[in-house]
Amino acid sequence: MGARFDDLATPFLYVDLDRMKRNIDAMAAAARELSVQLRPHAKTHKVPEIARLQIAAGASGVTLAKVSEAEVFADAGIDDLFLAYQIVSPAQLERVIRLARRTRLRCAVDSRDGAERLSRAAKDGGVELQVMLEIDLGIERTGVRAGVEAFDLAQRVADLPGLRLIGVYGFRGFRAFADGAESREAWGRAEGEALVSAAADLRAIGLPIVEVSAGSTPTAVPAGSVRGVTEIRPGQYLFGCANVVAQGAMRAEDVALFARATVISRPAEDRAVVDAGSKTLSTDGPWEPGRGFGYLASDPSTRVAGLWEEHGVLRLAENARRLRVGDRVSIVPNHVCTAVNLHDRLVAIHDDRVEVVWTIAARGRIE
Amino acid sequence: MGARFDDLATPFLYVDLDRMKRNIDAMAAAARELSVQLRPHAKTHKVPEIARLQIAAGASGVTLAKVSEAEVFADAGIDDLFLAYQIVSPAQLERVIRLARRTRLRCAVDSRDGAERLSRAAKDGGVELQVMLEIDLGIERTGVRAGVEAFDLAQRVADLPGLRLIGVYGFRGFRAFADGAESREAWGRAEGEALVSAAADLRAIGLPIVEVSAGSTPTAVPAGSVRGVTEIRPGQYLFGCANVVAQGAMRAEDVALFARATVISRPAEDRAVVDAGSKTLSTDGPWEPGRGFGYLASDPSTRVAGLWEEHGVLRLAENARRLRVGDRVSIVPNHVCTAVNLHDRLVAIHDDRVEVVWTIAARGRIE
Repeated sequence: MGARFDDLATPFLYVDLDRMKRNIDAMAAAARELSVQLRPHAKTHKVPEIARLQIAAGASGVTLAKVSEAEVFADAGIDDLFLAYQIVSPAQLERVIRLARRTRLRCAVDSRDGAERLSRAAKDGGVELQVMLEIDLGIERTGVRAGVEAFDLAQRVADLPGLRLIGVYGFRGFRAFADGAESREAWGRAEGEALVSAAADLRAIGLPIVEVSAGSTPTAVPAGSVRGVTEIRPGQYLFGCANVVAQGAMRAEDVALFARATVISRPAEDRAVVDAGSKTLSTDGPWEPGRGFGYLASDPSTRVAGLWEEHGVLRLAENARRLRVGDRVSIVPNHVCTAVNLHDRLVAIHDDRVEVVWTIAARGRIE
Repeated sequence: MGARFDDLATPFLYVDLDRMKRNIDAMAAAARELSVQLRPHAKTHKVPEIARLQIAAGASGVTLAKVSEAEVFADAGIDDLFLAYQIVSPAQLERVIRLARRTRLRCAVDSRDGAERLSRAAKDGGVELQVMLEIDLGIERTGVRAGVEAFDLAQRVADLPGLRLIGVYGFRGFRAFADGAESREAWGRAEGEALVSAAADLRAIGLPIVEVSAGSTPTAVPAGSVRGVTEIRPGQYLFGCANVVAQGAMRAEDVALFARATVISRPAEDRAVVDAGSKTLSTDGPWEPGRGFGYLASDPSTRVAGLWEEHGVLRLAENARRLRVGDRVSIVPNHVCTAVNLHDRLVAIHDDRVEVVWTIAARGRIE
């Protein structure tokens, strides 16, 4: 790379390579210690080169949400994919079948309609699809409830041609202490336990559930520590962001991804405006209310208090008031996944030098 | 275009061409009636072909926020640009100078530092730059306060080589009734009056202020109706979105942009999950708290109550409960500008047929 870090036009996202590699290694080590497979959710970075680093460190493959996203990773040679998303449209089902012919692929179902569509596509395509049943872990999104609903659907999947039911999965995120003062560890263990229990119920009616897949960055380790969980799927752990730090799931000094921005206006003693707004950082809110839209890496008490499309308004703490028009700063966004999705490139630095610029190849691959 | 609307993989954004053209014509007619220039903010659509339609209907040019965005429009032959943003970095200032050589360009300043940087770049580049002074209209973003601050900066700009001060501009948005039960009309008039007053003050000390530029979609018409305002800069008016409708600035039946999505899960009687999440609609919140992240075009009482990266959770009103897995729906996003910025293409339909698919050429041009 010829470009010097300080010459790159702002705003842009950059990664501290050493920190990222440490984060990748630490999660891989944690998974080995817990004897669970690690299948990172690659929607966080959307960069096949990074998926290769995760796999080299011990990940079994990657998790993805959309068919088009999975195609990008398959094209780059990543050949063990969990498409943790309900695919129901005929044209997209055809693409799933093509993916299944060239990769190890796991699909997701949470409804009879969806299972029947997947089965028809598999039959027509002459392939057998491995299927994971999504269990609703109480977040009111997708998934079937454990118990009668799960029995019925699992039995239906098992009966349908072209499908092979292999496991259950779920996502619970981490909703703070909304449901009664639980710690992150207790919250994560409850996620693992709910999935293990759902799997046991299905085995009791004779279904061969071998995979029990849990976790997100805040819950991966506690969920993975539950006996019977076989796989964890954290996404954000390699980069971190303000929300993951606020959740207590990573230390601030391990955050590896930043937005680089320039001060364009200094309208008041305690206010600087930078050229990174919601089209750079995303509008995703703070995990704890009232904490703005990210913070200054060099002074975490200085927050992005206001956010417009192309303006980030920093409320400057005492230490940051020396900032002048033209100064460049690094900002930790609230939510790294949605920030990355806004960018075409990710600059990777080592010792303050640009080591590589990755194309965010699956950016915008939402279909 | 060969592709049939119902065959396009979801999620995607589409525009109802007839409605969009009506909206473009209506704002152009309003500006003519008020005898003000119309310079739409093209960050809303980021599509040069659409800018051409706006100009053909009577717009004098377009407004843009970033240099890279302006370059895309200049490359497409749009040659009258207001870069309503403080450009302060040396490399970006060089790009501004190159733009000034090939287009009619207006620049923005709100600080002495910024003005001096702009002046040096203009002098070094051998061009004269037309400059608009940004007035702070109370939203605590960029801009100088009217009065002493504005006098000082305007005088400095007038004295600096390479710069020609031609006007003032501001942005106030519409913050509901936060500041004391004002109507949208009163709020917009106050915006226009503040700018006209700031311009009059500067003329009183001998500065040749000829342009007074106001407005956003909710305030453009009331601000433009203030005697002395010469230009309005609405952006969202051609598409509309849930927030603009909630502001009373457009009728729901004039909304021209929608996200097309597919129901992927039907976990409960009153819940459907679609494949359009925050990476399709953006996380921008509702103008009025508690109204979710958009609504179903066919049944506005059905809202996107929950939003994840790739999931939109519809809380189904009675009329929408017939929705099944695989059904396709149209959703009105909260904020059209940030939604468009997530997409590479914009499908334009006429009589339910795909008429053209535009490339969102300035998508992601944030530097």
